[in-house]
Amino acid sequence: MSDLQRFAGKDILGVGDFDRSDLAGLFAETRRMQRIVRERGATDLLRGRVLANLFYEPSTRTSSCFLAAMTRLGGSVIPISEVRYSSVSKGESLRDTVRTLEAYADVIVLRHPEVGAAKIAADAAKKPVINAGDGPGEHPTQALLDLFTIEAELGPVEGKTVTFLGDLKYGRTVHSLARLLALTGARVRYVSPPAVAMPRPLVAELAARGLEQSEHAELDEVLADTDVLYVTRVQKERFSSEADYETARRGYRVDAALLGRMKARAVVMHPLPRVGELDESVDDDPRTAIFRQVEYGMYVRMALLAAVLGRA
Amino acid sequence: MSDLQRFAGKDILGVGDFDRSDLAGLFAETRRMQRIVRERGATDLLRGRVLANLFYEPSTRTSSCFLAAMTRLGGSVIPISEVRYSSVSKGESLRDTVRTLEAYADVIVLRHPEVGAAKIAADAAKKPVINAGDGPGEHPTQALLDLFTIEAELGPVEGKTVTFLGDLKYGRTVHSLARLLALTGARVRYVSPPAVAMPRPLVAELAARGLEQSEHAELDEVLADTDVLYVTRVQKERFSSEADYETARRGYRVDAALLGRMKARAVVMHPLPRVGELDESVDDDPRTAIFRQVEYGMYVRMALLAAVLGRA
Amino acid sequence: MSDLQRFAGKDILGVGDFDRSDLAGLFAETRRMQRIVRERGATDLLRGRVLANLFYEPSTRTSSCFLAAMTRLGGSVIPISEVRYSSVSKGESLRDTVRTLEAYADVIVLRHPEVGAAKIAADAAKKPVINAGDGPGEHPTQALLDLFTIEAELGPVEGKTVTFLGDLKYGRTVHSLARLLALTGARVRYVSPPAVAMPRPLVAELAARGLEQSEHAELDEVLADTDVLYVTRVQKERFSSEADYETARRGYRVDAALLGRMKARAVVMHPLPRVGELDESVDDDPRTAIFRQVEYGMYVRMALLAAVLGRA
Repeated sequence: MSDLQRFAGKDILGVGDFDRSDLAGLFAETRRMQRIVRERGATDLLRGRVLANLFYEPSTRTSSCFLAAMTRLGGSVIPISEVRYSSVSKGESLRDTVRTLEAYADVIVLRHPEVGAAKIAADAAKKPVINAGDGPGEHPTQALLDLFTIEAELGPVEGKTVTFLGDLKYGRTVHSLARLLALTGARVRYVSPPAVAMPRPLVAELAARGLEQSEHAELDEVLADTDVLYVTRVQKERFSSEADYETARRGYRVDAALLGRMKARAVVMHPLPRVGELDESVDDDPRTAIFRQVEYGMYVRMALLAAVLGRA
Repeated sequence: MSDLQRFAGKDILGVGDFDRSDLAGLFAETRRMQRIVRERGATDLLRGRVLANLFYEPSTRTSSCFLAAMTRLGGSVIPISEVRYSSVSKGESLRDTVRTLEAYADVIVLRHPEVGAAKIAADAAKKPVINAGDGPGEHPTQALLDLFTIEAELGPVEGKTVTFLGDLKYGRTVHSLARLLALTGARVRYVSPPAVAMPRPLVAELAARGLEQSEHAELDEVLADTDVLYVTRVQKERFSSEADYETARRGYRVDAALLGRMKARAVVMHPLPRVGELDESVDDDPRTAIFRQVEYGMYVRMALLAAVLGRA
Repeated sequence: MSDLQRFAGKDILGVGDFDRSDLAGLFAETRRMQRIVRERGATDLLRGRVLANLFYEPSTRTSSCFLAAMTRLGGSVIPISEVRYSSVSKGESLRDTVRTLEAYADVIVLRHPEVGAAKIAADAAKKPVINAGDGPGEHPTQALLDLFTIEAELGPVEGKTVTFLGDLKYGRTVHSLARLLALTGARVRYVSPPAVAMPRPLVAELAARGLEQSEHAELDEVLADTDVLYVTRVQKERFSSEADYETARRGYRVDAALLGRMKARAVVMHPLPRVGELDESVDDDPRTAIFRQVEYGMYVRMALLAAVLGRA
């Protein structure tokens, strides 16, 4: 029995659903998906299965990725990305929407602006729900693809130093990935302006789980030892003052000159979209993995869809 | 020759397109579709066929249902749900839009806010048009799935009592289903506030067709004899005064306590979305069929698509 | 080796990418696609391949056409038609959007309001980009389907007279088709109000390429000799004054009476949508090819997709 069989029929709500053994199984399945796509583009594994791609807020990247993943598995997709145009605008509850969609579909992917929405949906639905981001809550599939990216680019993350840069307060991507890294024996460095530092409770939680962490005001304090530089988008609306925003934006910009001070074997990542914090001058550097990261995301999500539908 | 073969290449504009024999054929095909989906998820029956899903007003439920139905038949779908963003916004006529889409597709499903739109589209198109609701006009596929639901849950509707509750004036779902019931030997009860009672001409028409009908101000007058309780959404915009709306909304709310006064073998239905008139406390009652009703809708629409494309 | 094999992996940015031999190869493949659709609806030629249909401005006709084309080739589509709702609205560059989508898809079709956008996308992407219109720039697939329409309806265009009517200044469709006609030995007549005449530099360019052209204020000067009447939409926003617009709109209206003065064997075309300049009274005239033109468009785009994906 493969490690992934226990996910058949299950929801994927947060990174807490995975232990080290699950990750190993998931990543083996992910590599299998990568080979299938490279060799023949697609498979019939999920033929006749339907995914409801329910997005209550826009995310072209994530919704397109799940759509491509389901399609390359031979399945099909009901795309619902305009909730103002759906029954929701007539006052329908998330529970009813989800119970309606599971009458048509075999699995539901949900993006929602409110924390806890994925849990509500999963409780309402008999069929598997995959959380594709619920507000400031979890975004487990992003964290899984991030971890897969690190290992695909650098090998096992154990003993490696992962440096998170930018907005660490509101970046659910950072929070979820840090939780996964706590399983792996990686070291973690946080570099951010004080206004958007890692939340204290999360740092405490991760410390209790044995994650080696440290916080820094300047990237140069840790750059030379960094194996993985994880850059995040700094969003103006996250800051209480224009001044704080400008500090965050200007002080944490990554460009080719900065990469010149990094290890020769390293990887630079970003969850995208970027809006200036990661300069295009880094794009041709082989260490910059941002678009490979996007591609790995499709393979990870293929593996997850196959798993919850009992075909992994 | 199956009863459905005469629908090959035909439009589905209203419930008047069906007689009792057609209904028997359609429902047999619907049960076949249900078996296919349950046993293997999908079929190749409509492989290579394309549906244009043309929605001039939002209806996530209906558009998703047709999309899932076509997909599970092996076909594919052109989803057009943003008419403000289409050629229509450049002033194109419905006729031209339909004649364009039939150049790409094999069948057109149309939802439009104006009564008669489906007929205009059907006259313009050489290929089959299925009316998925034209304003206050018809919504035949909803009525067909409603009737299928009754028979799937309770057996033949002949001799059964169907009680319609709520807004019976503007509810085209109620009008279409009542017309179908006139073919079947069912008894019908109407319970509504006076402001949104069944239209007089329709009551007269149904009487002329032999439907046994009666109207009631209070649900309790008919509840004990009701086999099917069909609850409709009460929409604020349908009422001329706030007071009338509040009367309709509060006086006709169905909850678990009310179900306690119903027959042990009965079915509670709702076309969804609901906005308070059918309390979530009824959801776990086995008589509440609202989400099974949704699922039956997919099988009915699969059968209809197969029929008009000559593959039933 | 077929004439189309050189397009494998290539971008389709403008009509300048095609010479006469390419056109012959493309149209042979287009006829093959037409036969496939007529005989069996679809093929598996592009099974497992994914198209990203990236529309930064609305075009139901073009996006639906590419979607149907890809689907009938056995492939699937990521439809992205709401850019205000995409990462773009978060400030993402076209380059990043394209590089993200090529991680999921095998080919990108791009509609964009700015001239040169297709070239930027093609430079950013490793995978083929097909220009589906970039503002006042090129719209090569429309020009190719227009030329195919002429030859499908009348045979080789060499020696034929093609009359363009209406807004010839802003009509990129006209510009692209005129460029293609310069390869073919056709004669071209331009009929337009002065405010929206063919651009001088383009007329000079086409003259240098040997295209026989002449300009006329009145359609009747050339109508009797016209084999192809190509009518364009006259858009109010193109005119500096209401008076100029009314002149253009009223003076160049084609109706059944006007067709009465044309050759018995001729073809009337329009890129659609029409908003009055081509009266519905012409629709039943066998010379009016506007909806056949739409259908040919699907076959041409099937041929192009097969070509750039190396399966033509």
